[in-house]
This record gives sequence, C-alpha cells and structure tokens, in this order.
Amino acid sequence: MTELIYEQPLNEKTRSYLRLEYLEQQLQMNLDQDHQDRCFYPLFSLCELAERCDYRGEVLKDLDKQILLLSNWKSLPHIDKQQVEKYLSQLSNARETLQTSERPGSQLKQNRFLMALRQRFNMPGACCNFDLPQLHYWLAKPWDVRKNEYSQWLDTFRVLLTPISLLLELTRLTTEYTEAVAKAGFYQGNSNQALSLIRVQLDSHQGCYPTISGHKNRYAIHFVQFDQQKHSDKAIEFKLATCI
Amino acid sequence: MTELIYEQPLNEKTRSYLRLEYLEQQLQMNLDQDHQDRCFYPLFSLCELAERCDYRGEVLKDLDKQILLLSNWKSLPHIDKQQVEKYLSQLSNARETLQTSERPGSQLKQNRFLMALRQRFNMPGACCNFDLPQLHYWLAKPWDVRKNEYSQWLDTFRVLLTPISLLLELTRLTTEYTEAVAKAGFYQGNSNQALSLIRVQLDSHQGCYPTISGHKNRYAIHFVQFDQQKHSDKAIEFKLATCI
Repeated sequence: MTELIYEQPLNEKTRSYLRLEYLEQQLQMNLDQDHQDRCFYPLFSLCELAERCDYRGEVLKDLDKQILLLSNWKSLPHIDKQQVEKYLSQLSNARETLQTSERPGSQLKQNRFLMALRQRFNMPGACCNFDLPQLHYWLAKPWDVRKNEYSQWLDTFRVLLTPISLLLELTRLTTEYTEAVAKAGFYQGNSNQALSLIRVQLDSHQGCYPTISGHKNRYAIHFVQFDQQKHSDKAIEFKLATCI
Repeated sequence: MTELIYEQPLNEKTRSYLRLEYLEQQLQMNLDQDHQDRCFYPLFSLCELAERCDYRGEVLKDLDKQILLLSNWKSLPHIDKQQVEKYLSQLSNARETLQTSERPGSQLKQNRFLMALRQRFNMPGACCNFDLPQLHYWLAKPWDVRKNEYSQWLDTFRVLLTPISLLLELTRLTTEYTEAVAKAGFYQGNSNQALSLIRVQLDSHQGCYPTISGHKNRYAIHFVQFDQQKHSDKAIEFKLATCI
C-alpha cells in the first residue's frame, strides 16, 4: 500500500474549491480511460454546482489577492524570483480569461443530448437502452470520437477550474509537512493564524484513515480503523501540514 | 460503426426486468475493469430498486410459468429436447435458490462502509476526500482486493439477477428478426398476441436511433437523427423482432 494524503477544508470557500478540484480530477480520468456512461456523473455534478453558485466573483477576488501578495514578495531577498514570476504570469492569464468568460457550463445547457441524459442520471437505474436510446447510440461511437466530445464539454469549465487548481496549489505551498503522533488515535492543534486547509499524510499500511474536523484556529483529528470502522486506540504516526 | 440493438418493454414487468438486467451488466463491467469510485453508482442503484420493490414473488411466478411451458414442449415433435432440458434445469435451479433466499441486497445494509458511501453518492460532487476519507482509503487498496470485495457485494443480488437474465433470454428467443423499412422515419405495427418486448436492430452508420412506444397490441417506432436530434424523414432499413 502507499502514502495517502487526506485533506480537510476549514472554511466554506476552500471546501467549494476542493469539491470543484475533485470533480476536475474525475473528469480528467474520463479522458485517460473509457469509463462508458459513468463519465457523465462528474460532468453533471459539475453542471449542478456551477448552476447553484457562480464562483467567478470569489475566484477573481482570490486571484487579485494572490497577485498582490506575490507582487510584494518579488522585492524580498532570498526569494526564488523566477518561480514567483511563473505563478504571477499564470495567475494573470487565468484572471484575464475568467473575467471575460460567460458563466461556466452555460453553453452545455444548449446541448439537447446532454440535457436529456442529465434528467435521468439522478434516478437509480434510469439510463437503460429504452430510457435513453441516444446514449446507447453515443456509446457505440469510437472512443476517440467520444473522448474528443467529452473534452469539449470539459473545456467549458476550464476557465473556472484552472484558476482554482492554481489557488489550491498556492494554498498547499504555504506549509511543509511535519512529523506528528496521534496518541490513542487522537490529535488536536491550535493556530493563531486563520487556517484554510489541514493535510494529513498517512501510510495506508497503518490500516486507518483520519476524520478531521475544525474551524480556522482549532482542529481535531480522529483516526478510524478501516476494517472495524471504529476509532483507533493506537499511537498513529503521520505527517501534518496546516495551510493558511 | 456497428449493429446496435434497441429494446422497448411493452409492460411494467419487462420494464423492471430490463432495468435490473442493465444494472447487472453495469456491475459486471466493474469487475472487468477498474472504474474506481464510479463502480458504486450501479451498485447503489440496484440497492435502491431492490428496496423499493421485492421482485422475488413475481420472478418466482414467472419461473413456474416457464417451467410448465417448457415441460409441455418436451412432448412435442421437432423439439430440441436437449436444449429444453438445459433451460428446465437452469430454471429449476434458479427457482430453488431464489425461494430460499433472503431479500436481495438486505445483507449490504449491515455494511457500514457501503451505507456511509451511499448516503453521499446521490449528492453532486459530494464524494471528495474530505467527505469520505474511508473511500479514499478503500480506493488505494490493490485492484484485485477491491474487485474481490465488489464481487461479494454483487453476489448478494445474483439470486435475483440470474433468473431475470434467464427469463429475458427466453423472451428474446420467442421471435426472430425480420427485415423492415420505416418510411419517412416512421413504422407502426399491431399484434393479436400480447407482446412484451420490441427489439430493433439497426446499423449505426445510418446515423439515427429509434424511439419506440406502445402497448401490448400496438407499437410505433420513430427514428431520430442523432446529430440534429430531430425526427428523420428518410426511409430507414432495420430488423424487427416482436417478442411475446
């Protein structure tokens, strides 16, 4: 087994960003491999989230904040100026694209094929041959044709997903991992600075996973034994990063 | 592209059976290839359907009907007795297993891991790392371990799914395909015998799919151009089977 990273957002914004990033990863996996009709689940989830909330305003504000922060860093000594310039350029590009974009996903609403599918994908087992003959037809197209169409649908969200990946990358870079031990499967911590993200790196051979809870200045980690689905009473060694 | 088969049930029972058969095929695909967390969608759909309706009574009645029918056939001349015996033995086995079984899927309700996942799989994008750390842990297990667990979950439904496949197979065998032409994309038919299933075989290079509607004695088929998502006005050649 392997080292796994578990993350817990400590504010609503980071929670939304992680959710969108997760969907992006799922969508990307559907370009790497043919998952047949399963590819539509993350796509429709993303449509749903993008309809419920227009994330553009918040993301633009965050991009501005990061651009200002990194611009100030440039004058500091001991700073990798090249790296800072790279991020500044990526942030500015993402900002420009997002500012001039229409609402992500809105184009897909014109797609009658997708909208017919979407209505049925929320119902259990409701995507049979006879429910959606057009899906049956579509799935018989060659994989590279379907992949190409899928990629175009995904593209309508890139304008939002690219800056979110970038912002989360910068959040994760704010702190490095330190070694920690959870006595009797429990660990808690405080921070004077408002935190946005807790990251726990854990070797899966320990047979447990963390459940993390908290608010910007306090957090607690419980480790649960997977096989018994019960709180662990062992000392668990892990790596911890608390990101600003 | 290739020859595709489209099916339309003409009664509620066949509709349910096709839905369950479709889910079985989806589940089976998740044993052939690693579809990561996507494998849970058909599993939870099946749980949902099996909870809403206990199909056992209806399936047992159908098995009895088929056993009686085939037993009568045995005495007829020009009958492939060996084939009939094969089906009779399969039907009897399926009947015996189903009669002594507990309600399909009920065991899975005891599985805390699955039930925790199931609660979240209906919500868009709600299966992140932080929503379900136990899923993150599970997905890091080797594929053959996961496949084995998945296969066990699936097994709890086999008692129901095996006879349904068998019953549908016998339904499909009641008729052979005949050539047909839909003038201006439309075809309709009648039958004195009550029909349960319409089957349309169509070469996908024709660029269209059928939408079929009907009741036990009447049915209509409209062909729709996939690219325009519009009724076709061309003459469409297809193969038709109307099953009892």
